[in-house]
Amino acid sequence: MPPIPDRILGIDPGLNITGYGVLDVCAGKLKLVEAGVVRGHCRSSLTRRVADIFEGVAEVIAALQPSVLALEQLYSHYNRPRTAILMGHARGVICLAGAQAGIPVVHYPSTQVKRILTGSGRATKLQVQRAIMHELGLIEPPEPPDVADALAIALCHYYLKDRPTVRGLAE
Amino acid sequence: MPPIPDRILGIDPGLNITGYGVLDVCAGKLKLVEAGVVRGHCRSSLTRRVADIFEGVAEVIAALQPSVLALEQLYSHYNRPRTAILMGHARGVICLAGAQAGIPVVHYPSTQVKRILTGSGRATKLQVQRAIMHELGLIEPPEPPDVADALAIALCHYYLKDRPTVRGLAE
Repeated sequence: MPPIPDRILGIDPGLNITGYGVLDVCAGKLKLVEAGVVRGHCRSSLTRRVADIFEGVAEVIAALQPSVLALEQLYSHYNRPRTAILMGHARGVICLAGAQAGIPVVHYPSTQVKRILTGSGRATKLQVQRAIMHELGLIEPPEPPDVADALAIALCHYYLKDRPTVRGLAE
Repeated sequence: MPPIPDRILGIDPGLNITGYGVLDVCAGKLKLVEAGVVRGHCRSSLTRRVADIFEGVAEVIAALQPSVLALEQLYSHYNRPRTAILMGHARGVICLAGAQAGIPVVHYPSTQVKRILTGSGRATKLQVQRAIMHELGLIEPPEPPDVADALAIALCHYYLKDRPTVRGLAE
C-alpha cells in the first residue's frame, strides 16, 4: 500500500515510552488520526528494548501508512548525556523503520517546535499542551506527555513542511 | 542456518565506518575468520547511514553466523557528547541486527577491553594493536583502526565469556 499523502507521523523517542501521533491534512484542515505509545519492556536489556521500539514503530507505519516521519532533533540534550546517548539508540531504530518503509524522516530542534506552536522557544510543557489542544480541537490535554510531544512535532512539520529544513548529518 | 558455536563477532560502531572482526574458538585456540568494515555513505542523511549500517551488519551476521555479538559500552564518551549521541544511533541498529538474528548482544567498557588485552585500562592504541597482533599471530597491525577496535572487543569477550557481565539496561 503506498503512503497516504499528507499524513504526518510525529514521534517522541524514548527507551521506556515512545510517543506517536498521526495527523491528516484534509482540504487544508488538520485531523487527528491516532495517537499512542510504544513501550520498551522496562526490565529488559537495551537490545530487547530497541527491538521492541523498532517493531512497534514499524507496525504503526504499516498500519497507518504515513507519508513522512518527523522527530525532535536530539542535540538539545547535552546536559543529560547518558539519557541522550540511550535515546540515540531509540532514534536510530526509529529512523531505520522510516527508511525501510521508504518515507522521508525529518528532524526539528525542540526550540523550533515550541516557537512554532506557541511563539516562544522557551514555552513550558503546559503552554505547548494548550497549543496542541487548540490546534486539534481537543477538550483534554493529550496524555501521557510523550504523546503530547509527538503531536507537537507532527504539528511543527505541518507548519514548516513547505520550508527547507536541515537534512544533512546534522539531522 | 543456526549460529556457529563459539564464533564471536566484535563490532566497533560508527556512522562513517563500523569495524567488525570475527573470531573462532577451535579446540581452545583462536582463529581470525574475517575482519572488515561497513561504511555509511558519508554525504548521506543520518537516516540513510543507519540503514546502511543495519544492512551491512545484518549481512555479516547472515553470512558468518556468529553465536554472539560483542560491543564496546558507550558511556565512556561523555566528553564528546555529539559524537556519542550519533554513535548511539549506530549502536541502536547494530543491537537490533543482533536481536533479529536471535544472538546475544554483550557490552564491555573500553577500559575493561584495554585491561584484558594489555594489563592496563589506560593502554594506548599502539599497545592494544600489538596485543591483538600477538594474540592472533598477525604480522601487521589490523587496519583501519575500527577493525583493530572490533577485534579487541571480540578478544575481550573471548577472555571474559565465562564470567558474568552487565546485561541490564546499563549495557
